[in-house]
Amino acid sequence: MERERLSRGLMQVYTGDGKGKTTCALGLALRAVGQGFKVYLVQFLKGRDTGEARAAARLAPDLTLKAFGRPVLVNLKSPAPEDLALAREALDLARELLAAGDHDLVILDEINVALAYGLVPLEEVLEMLKQRPSWVEVVLTGRGAPPELIALADLVTEMRPVKHYYEAGVPGRRGIEW
Amino acid sequence: MERERLSRGLMQVYTGDGKGKTTCALGLALRAVGQGFKVYLVQFLKGRDTGEARAAARLAPDLTLKAFGRPVLVNLKSPAPEDLALAREALDLARELLAAGDHDLVILDEINVALAYGLVPLEEVLEMLKQRPSWVEVVLTGRGAPPELIALADLVTEMRPVKHYYEAGVPGRRGIEW
Repeated sequence: MERERLSRGLMQVYTGDGKGKTTCALGLALRAVGQGFKVYLVQFLKGRDTGEARAAARLAPDLTLKAFGRPVLVNLKSPAPEDLALAREALDLARELLAAGDHDLVILDEINVALAYGLVPLEEVLEMLKQRPSWVEVVLTGRGAPPELIALADLVTEMRPVKHYYEAGVPGRRGIEW
Repeated sequence: MERERLSRGLMQVYTGDGKGKTTCALGLALRAVGQGFKVYLVQFLKGRDTGEARAAARLAPDLTLKAFGRPVLVNLKSPAPEDLALAREALDLARELLAAGDHDLVILDEINVALAYGLVPLEEVLEMLKQRPSWVEVVLTGRGAPPELIALADLVTEMRPVKHYYEAGVPGRRGIEW
């Protein structure tokens, strides 16, 4: 049976320094899957074995998650050639997914960071977003979303850290932060 | 096999007028389930058949979602007796869950709104949060989180609407907003 598609797919951006950007995108994925949508989550700059990757496997084939990154943190100011190559791979997959229009919701997690530090070219990203089929909802997350991305978006939420336990020295915790 | 518990459960609050508060809590639920945690999501003021409820069923018994509300919007300034009774039921369940400590993550969705409009008593909520076992992470969402709640929290993110498509007349969409 043909599933019902969105009549109009919009573009959502989650940015800012507060906790909740990737997490919000995961929640969108969960909700969309619950309503019968097909969701693809492409993670830029991330390669760790995460809770979201494990949970996604339980919601396959409705939710697909693919992380492009090494288990180490990328040096954003001076990325290694492998990191640049992985960002390029992620971008190529994102472009294919958007163009194909087979998924109702495509999430480009941390792409804002990759854009802000020039790991992926802004013009190419703007172009693939504009060219996508009308029914594809797209969500972009990460700190430092460039103004051109914000201008193109239909919705932008800034996650503002009123209070953060990182400042109290709490490390990222398995099951909560990853 | 006994599952590994959090060494210290913290209290997270998501508030503000932007999109992403409930959604972020859903993402936390998904990630926690992926890491083998048990999660309970109590929804205040909500009774609609949602994507999150359907998706939660697919992650049972690790994720349980129970919504306390009628399918209509609550008149917050003058709630009906049924709405007050449902908020009380939700609160009673929340207190039991927190006290039992059987779940690693307990989410009290939209409780901030119920607190802000006096549908549930603030003192009782603060008390049950303080009394919970040390390993229970608790997440509270909704606009208008009272200052006393923010003071008690370990993490507070304000979702700030930089741009929202509601203002362009886009209605809440199945699979995206519910």
